[in-house]
Amino acid sequence: MSLPRILFCGDIVWAHEETKQLFHGLAEVVRMNSPDRADFFVNLKAGGRYEGTVAIYRDNSSAERVGVFDRALIEALPPDVRWIAHNGAGYDQIDVNACKEKGVIVSNTPIAVDDATATTALYLMISAFRHFSQGERGLRSGRWKSDISSLLTHDLTGKTLAILGLGGIGFRLAELARAFPMRIIYHSRRKVDGAPDWCEYFGQEQLDKFLGLADVLSVHVPLRSDTTGLVNEEMIRKLKKGAILVNTARGKVIDEAALIKALEDGHLGAVGLDVYPNEPAVNPRLLEFPNAVLLPHMGTETCDSQKKMEVRALANIRDYLVKGKGSDIVPELRELATKL
Amino acid sequence: MSLPRILFCGDIVWAHEETKQLFHGLAEVVRMNSPDRADFFVNLKAGGRYEGTVAIYRDNSSAERVGVFDRALIEALPPDVRWIAHNGAGYDQIDVNACKEKGVIVSNTPIAVDDATATTALYLMISAFRHFSQGERGLRSGRWKSDISSLLTHDLTGKTLAILGLGGIGFRLAELARAFPMRIIYHSRRKVDGAPDWCEYFGQEQLDKFLGLADVLSVHVPLRSDTTGLVNEEMIRKLKKGAILVNTARGKVIDEAALIKALEDGHLGAVGLDVYPNEPAVNPRLLEFPNAVLLPHMGTETCDSQKKMEVRALANIRDYLVKGKGSDIVPELRELATKL
Repeated sequence: MSLPRILFCGDIVWAHEETKQLFHGLAEVVRMNSPDRADFFVNLKAGGRYEGTVAIYRDNSSAERVGVFDRALIEALPPDVRWIAHNGAGYDQIDVNACKEKGVIVSNTPIAVDDATATTALYLMISAFRHFSQGERGLRSGRWKSDISSLLTHDLTGKTLAILGLGGIGFRLAELARAFPMRIIYHSRRKVDGAPDWCEYFGQEQLDKFLGLADVLSVHVPLRSDTTGLVNEEMIRKLKKGAILVNTARGKVIDEAALIKALEDGHLGAVGLDVYPNEPAVNPRLLEFPNAVLLPHMGTETCDSQKKMEVRALANIRDYLVKGKGSDIVPELRELATKL
Repeated sequence: MSLPRILFCGDIVWAHEETKQLFHGLAEVVRMNSPDRADFFVNLKAGGRYEGTVAIYRDNSSAERVGVFDRALIEALPPDVRWIAHNGAGYDQIDVNACKEKGVIVSNTPIAVDDATATTALYLMISAFRHFSQGERGLRSGRWKSDISSLLTHDLTGKTLAILGLGGIGFRLAELARAFPMRIIYHSRRKVDGAPDWCEYFGQEQLDKFLGLADVLSVHVPLRSDTTGLVNEEMIRKLKKGAILVNTARGKVIDEAALIKALEDGHLGAVGLDVYPNEPAVNPRLLEFPNAVLLPHMGTETCDSQKKMEVRALANIRDYLVKGKGSDIVPELRELATKL
């Protein structure tokens, strides 16, 4: 009897041993080796190299060859595909509505990225409050600290961290920032069940107050149609003058033009960005602001977290094969998954 | 009746109101306005502008004009000077032995710097583990993240932070790092009274074990004759290969040649430095290592901490004037102070 086939669209870098252990005797691993999207589509068909696939492991690197998992790609998947295990927290490269219609469940790796991404936000926040990135550029240009004015630099302790979206990453950042302590406030569509009292909730009707209290606003919402441009001109202007904006989520959640305008006129004191609307392109205007800390989307770039993410995504496929259902199902597909 | 005179050798930037409140009706504030050391010495004498001084406020910026408070300067102070309130944690610019002989107490501002300096060490540690400084340089050079290998980047969580010198700054760093959590171990001459159990003490006979456990060694000892070059070749080589070295104390506590050698041969995975042996000069060799995070001695550069430090130093002078003794007396002069 032939084993069910799992298609790996993306590289396993760390979890080679785990891959063998997880699927030995249970499934055949097929590595996607299409040079381009056209070849990929051809081989998804009956008689192609990817025929018989029941589950797909993917990461965003696969988009370089076969493009994102948009409606056309989802519709072209072999009929037995029932699970896409995405390696990453953000799954905006997958058309979840098309998956829903086709009856394909999508899982991501939310918990595995929390620590590394929240640490990135903490770093951006410290650097923005303290002007450390600017200080290092000064030193490396032979100017020691002549660029720095302590008039404009602040301790984090006692300041207010406003978290937009208290999911796993936002809450992890809250835990790290609480050590100073900072005051932790958050806004999300609903009060988060089980969030501790020291995470103060501000609902929709208190959004203005929430923004007005923030010394730093850190963005932790996924990119969806309803969150594109969520942090807009109006929201930014409700922050106090000199407030800091940090983004480790997705670039398109912030209206970049509004952000740049607020840096230009000094309304924002500093920004810390790990993500951009058109990565890997970075708006060259951002590089001109001394008070912009700019990382090249390194939020989950650690070998520890990369391995955790690979193992988590693969374990979800194994669980699907063995138990009929994996974990980490993305919100849009949870209802469909209850029918499995 | 004329008021006793306090000489300000250094600028008060933040605590103007506090200065008025602290000394109104109690002392006359005289601002040091000597253009150079020779003028300063002349005016310390009877008949000079600084005659009648009983206490001195100083910071390191005064050295640019009158030099450090070495033996010659201490011996030249007016006979009634009994207190030097130094604004800063490190007081290596003051010859405390000469002060002892002359009967002058020296205070510093240890508690006021703890938060800002420990935050700096945390920043350097995160950047070194995650290669963030290198990442930002790559982005700013148009290379996005091609410089970064996640093979070499790590999460802090679960790693071991080894603190050399568990004073106020070291303990504050321990508190911040514990939030991840990291394992916290420390070495100092003596076990610190009142340190919590989660700060594991390693004494002199366990120093090798302490160094061997460290994923990151953070230096928090003051510069004294017995700590100059304390972190030497031998100590660095006892760290594991790939360990990180962080210094926010004083540059001369580390043997810089040994540090550079260990970066060259890859024994050290990264360094995070805020201090250098010959500031503001930075050894240009350091700039060549991609895995060196280099700040221009910004450890206490925040308006919040600068103000705390000014107020604390001034309050020590006021306490001396009112109660005969201030707080924050440096260890070398505590015995003398008991005789006040």
